[in-house]
Amino acid sequence: METNFLRAHIHQIVCLTDEEFEYARSFFTKRKYKKHQYIIQAGDVASQEHFVVKGIVKSSYTDHEGKEYILQLAMEEWWFSDPNAFNTGMPATLNVDCIEDTETLSISFENKEKLCASSRKMEYFFRKKYTTGNMALQKRVLALLSNNAGERYKQWRNQYPSLQKRISKTLIASYLGVTRETLSRLSL
Amino acid sequence: METNFLRAHIHQIVCLTDEEFEYARSFFTKRKYKKHQYIIQAGDVASQEHFVVKGIVKSSYTDHEGKEYILQLAMEEWWFSDPNAFNTGMPATLNVDCIEDTETLSISFENKEKLCASSRKMEYFFRKKYTTGNMALQKRVLALLSNNAGERYKQWRNQYPSLQKRISKTLIASYLGVTRETLSRLSL
Repeated sequence: METNFLRAHIHQIVCLTDEEFEYARSFFTKRKYKKHQYIIQAGDVASQEHFVVKGIVKSSYTDHEGKEYILQLAMEEWWFSDPNAFNTGMPATLNVDCIEDTETLSISFENKEKLCASSRKMEYFFRKKYTTGNMALQKRVLALLSNNAGERYKQWRNQYPSLQKRISKTLIASYLGVTRETLSRLSL
Repeated sequence: METNFLRAHIHQIVCLTDEEFEYARSFFTKRKYKKHQYIIQAGDVASQEHFVVKGIVKSSYTDHEGKEYILQLAMEEWWFSDPNAFNTGMPATLNVDCIEDTETLSISFENKEKLCASSRKMEYFFRKKYTTGNMALQKRVLALLSNNAGERYKQWRNQYPSLQKRISKTLIASYLGVTRETLSRLSL
């Protein structure tokens, strides 16, 4: 099942033959995590990039006063990692834990580079994925800069209606960078 | 001059032979802009991605009330575009204007795809560039979420000391999402 899911995801950008897909698939490992389990912990090595097959994860940063800031809420068909840790080998600064039971297909940095070096189509795929990732992040920066909580909530709800139903209002508020009370007013 | 500059920039990621570089270079066009000139205007087509050879540009979004939000201040060796317009062909939503006289090497979407399809090394280069772009944007999202203007200013000053000397305090404040008064307090 998870294999078909990854294949359909890749095919949105580039078509692989059965053989090419099986080759690419062999670089990934299937992983299962329980709700509340940590996939990445700040301070640890975080050498895997993960594709969500099932579930939701929360990627966050906790400052020295213990306050948590949510960077990403990732569900099926999203990719997540601690990008800095993954790409540089430095210890993770982010935490990633599971909001639901989660299944991933995960690839190490080394395997990703090997796969890209040996499969032209997969290098193209990852270049395009990062391009759309950049576009989404720029949108998020603009939404945060404009600092209009109402617009931010409306935009997020429209963009990810199915995600909204599966996570708590407290998490949504934290993701948007507003208080729980502000979000309640916006939800009325 | 600008050609050597681009070559040195590419060589930070991947080494090209003279021939390979000349081939890659042929996909770029050299452009010159005056201080205050617009390179991208909201509503227009923005089919070029630009590498800054000299100067500084400001990439910003203006909301329906006329308030401007700065997404990027890009100087030598940075890349800029309206990523959404560049990658989808939709009209630009951002404005990019010159803070100083600026020179760029610019590549169209079509040429970038042709170059990547015909040069393995350049596809690798652009994949890696987008990876580091993602890392920088995630840092910016976290800085905005944590909403600590002092930390944000300190981090930015440390990251780009030479940029700070070349642009006005008003622009820096806008980039950081704080008022000019707040920035003055932080600068003391």
